[in-house]
Amino acid sequence: MEHHEPNITNALRLRDLGIDSRNEHLVFMRRDCPVCVAEGFNALSRVRVASPNKRLAASLIVVDDPGRLRADELGLSTGAIRFLNAAEGDLLTLSHLGDLASMSDIRRKIFGGTLDEDSFRRIVADVTNLSLSNVQLSAFITACAADRMSADEVVFLTRSMIGVGDRLYWDKPAVFDKHSVGGLPGNRTTPIVVAIAAAAGLTIPKTSSRAITSPAGTADTMETLTNVDLGIDEIRKVVELEGGCLAWGGAVKLSPADDILVRVQRALDIDSEGQMIASVLSKKAAAGSTSVVIDIPVGPTAKVRSREAGESLAEVMGAVGREVGLQIDAVITDGSQPVGRGIGPALEAREVLAVLRNETDAPLDLAEKSFMLAGRLIGMSREGNAGSGYAIARGILESGEAWEKFVRICEAQGGLKQPPTARHRFEVKADRSGTVVSINNRKLSRTAKLSGAPGSPAAGILLNIKLDDPVRAGDTLFEVHAEAEGELAYSLEYLKENTDVLEIK
Amino acid sequence: MEHHEPNITNALRLRDLGIDSRNEHLVFMRRDCPVCVAEGFNALSRVRVASPNKRLAASLIVVDDPGRLRADELGLSTGAIRFLNAAEGDLLTLSHLGDLASMSDIRRKIFGGTLDEDSFRRIVADVTNLSLSNVQLSAFITACAADRMSADEVVFLTRSMIGVGDRLYWDKPAVFDKHSVGGLPGNRTTPIVVAIAAAAGLTIPKTSSRAITSPAGTADTMETLTNVDLGIDEIRKVVELEGGCLAWGGAVKLSPADDILVRVQRALDIDSEGQMIASVLSKKAAAGSTSVVIDIPVGPTAKVRSREAGESLAEVMGAVGREVGLQIDAVITDGSQPVGRGIGPALEAREVLAVLRNETDAPLDLAEKSFMLAGRLIGMSREGNAGSGYAIARGILESGEAWEKFVRICEAQGGLKQPPTARHRFEVKADRSGTVVSINNRKLSRTAKLSGAPGSPAAGILLNIKLDDPVRAGDTLFEVHAEAEGELAYSLEYLKENTDVLEIK
Repeated sequence: MEHHEPNITNALRLRDLGIDSRNEHLVFMRRDCPVCVAEGFNALSRVRVASPNKRLAASLIVVDDPGRLRADELGLSTGAIRFLNAAEGDLLTLSHLGDLASMSDIRRKIFGGTLDEDSFRRIVADVTNLSLSNVQLSAFITACAADRMSADEVVFLTRSMIGVGDRLYWDKPAVFDKHSVGGLPGNRTTPIVVAIAAAAGLTIPKTSSRAITSPAGTADTMETLTNVDLGIDEIRKVVELEGGCLAWGGAVKLSPADDILVRVQRALDIDSEGQMIASVLSKKAAAGSTSVVIDIPVGPTAKVRSREAGESLAEVMGAVGREVGLQIDAVITDGSQPVGRGIGPALEAREVLAVLRNETDAPLDLAEKSFMLAGRLIGMSREGNAGSGYAIARGILESGEAWEKFVRICEAQGGLKQPPTARHRFEVKADRSGTVVSINNRKLSRTAKLSGAPGSPAAGILLNIKLDDPVRAGDTLFEVHAEAEGELAYSLEYLKENTDVLEIK
Repeated sequence: MEHHEPNITNALRLRDLGIDSRNEHLVFMRRDCPVCVAEGFNALSRVRVASPNKRLAASLIVVDDPGRLRADELGLSTGAIRFLNAAEGDLLTLSHLGDLASMSDIRRKIFGGTLDEDSFRRIVADVTNLSLSNVQLSAFITACAADRMSADEVVFLTRSMIGVGDRLYWDKPAVFDKHSVGGLPGNRTTPIVVAIAAAAGLTIPKTSSRAITSPAGTADTMETLTNVDLGIDEIRKVVELEGGCLAWGGAVKLSPADDILVRVQRALDIDSEGQMIASVLSKKAAAGSTSVVIDIPVGPTAKVRSREAGESLAEVMGAVGREVGLQIDAVITDGSQPVGRGIGPALEAREVLAVLRNETDAPLDLAEKSFMLAGRLIGMSREGNAGSGYAIARGILESGEAWEKFVRICEAQGGLKQPPTARHRFEVKADRSGTVVSINNRKLSRTAKLSGAPGSPAAGILLNIKLDDPVRAGDTLFEVHAEAEGELAYSLEYLKENTDVLEIK
């Protein structure tokens, strides 16, 4: 019998394969490399990869083609290379990952258990540092979906998500924000609401997302009007000057776990109420907000489909908000059709300008909804009632103060510019006379996206009609705008197959 | 206003990147390739890839490095290339996947709904053709875990899994099989049970798996004794000659959906009772079995931890079996410690030979358990009681008939050979005197795996003790066998950190 000293040299040299795997780190190894052979690694194996100073968890993808990777090399996804601070040619060591403590928590949740705050903290930490695989993230999301999260668990998840990532602090007694749970095309109230609220003296450091599944996010729309790519310091400077800003939130890492979880939910195409609430409220709290108005559009093709669902959502949001120090005013709004006429970054921007400038052809529904939401913010700020806030908001807009404030905010962010216009347009006409009885928000969004929005900022849809409008055969129902001929063709193809985008009876 | 004809040319040329992604097809595209830009594809996007004749669903991995892939190229995982029957340079078209019908079913299950047989059929079909991503597979598994599957749903899933893949038919009134739910190291009863049953005149076309998480599967053990790599025709020939076989099941695609689902369950490290039952019974039914004895080891470190859990499992298996035409005899066995002394392919093979040859040092527990299981099979075949079966089984072994049958089966499969022995051995000694009060099955398995089993067939563990054995300080508790010095070092390192593999008090 011999006795051996451990002599573990599970190391391979790094090759940068330029691969973006987003939610989870990936490691690429040859099936016949010494480490795979010795460790029994297989496709989907979870592997610990370590540089001299850092280590991470990655999922293995097995490479069979000897031409791509040498047997003494490993490939890593770009995020993993950045995380390890490694460079091509570096020697990295590999080992079995073992089980993460957060996976025991997730398994407990899968089997119907209830998790405490420590469990959520562990899970969110591992989500944030990409230590969980997509398979594991998906299991967590599924285990928390439907009604499988208690109110306490939603609070724990929210707090844990606030706890990771950046956090903004404002030296103000009250900081305001506005959010829409989404699902409605157009509905670009935010720039108007921020301008009114800031003109009313409120502090409203608004950061917005770019579109992920919709034809435009507020950041996409604002980007056609000004620079939105601000760092934390720039946001502070703009807000100090003007009381508000309209920045893209991407440069600020508020609740980074949320971005990852949301991506998996999108891949499953599920909205889990508990996680949606944690998502929204964690970002608001991390942004330093104290008072938030939340727009919950309810309609048959909106995200929230029934009034009861909307009211239950509003109630839970209020309760969770209280636990994490946020005053929430959630308001159910009409989600039966788009708000405004434009769908797509530049088309929406143009209407925002029209409303702010009191132009006569500005869409009334967009203006009214903006007054209502801004009024609620003003109401919260004065601890008065929402009704008086509405009148103040309307007054600020009609007096031109909101427009002035908007121009100043844009100038502080780098200057106001004109949104682009689309080269290609197509008018979709009514093939019969009657009344518009339904508008399918989802299909309208899809059409706008196929025409190029938001990647092509001038692309999208301009609606000529609203629900209950009478139309005659040959009337233009809406225009499709596109920057490229191919994209226009895409959306027209889609419209040919989907004749129920609008229904006329 | 212009009018455009659709002009969709979303095509890229195939490059074979030699990547094995197993459960799901992967497509690699450059972030700046025309298709990603036009379609708004992103990491994790689900993409439809089509050759002129076939199409599939793939998950997108975005490649940033322009050196790896040209903007007019796409990469595909190996399985996808094979499925499309495509070659490098082929022009493949890409489009949004849209939503699969099976994903609506899965979402219904996520939200607590009950699925009918059609739903399970759609899901299993998409699992089998790799149309679901790992994220989606994981959601399905999680949604079905714990007690979230009704008995009917288990039956539907089992039937759906039988419905895809190969199926064997035998021209016999009864076809026998034996299965262990696993979790116990050693426990290599199958070769002995098959030899006895075949010698008793039963038809027992046994196909086994290789180890996936354990130190040895029956196929790994048998591979050290004979050729196990048989196609369907060879299996038929051996069974026609000898009544039984001991083949690897991998060449026969029985219940291929199961292999995929099991891999995701392993990644989550969860055992879902419903899916485990569907997994086992679908393979048995597809193999043409009619009567199956199932070994359910129960013990604190076995897969099934309590007698109640074992009994409930036995009951549900019996009920589902009846629905899919299988007679099930599920038996709860002692899972508190390994059965036999050897853990690892060759070490187990050696004991199988010892029992079959009636050698005096053959492990008694392995022999006894084999008589019991073979006896139950014989009992089922004669519609008599299990007790008389036991005596018959024992008689067949003691008379040498079982050994004769085993040799003939091995010869029909390509000849009997000697299992290899390990070059490196290390004796682990007791550091105190006392009684062996616990044996940790999981840690023992891990040690055997680190020593190289099953990849190195001679590697593993040879136990010198059983529970309740008295030991003196310095006695050898077990030997670690390894083929490579590095692997021996690995397992010794592990033992240093895990002093509770055996407990002496």
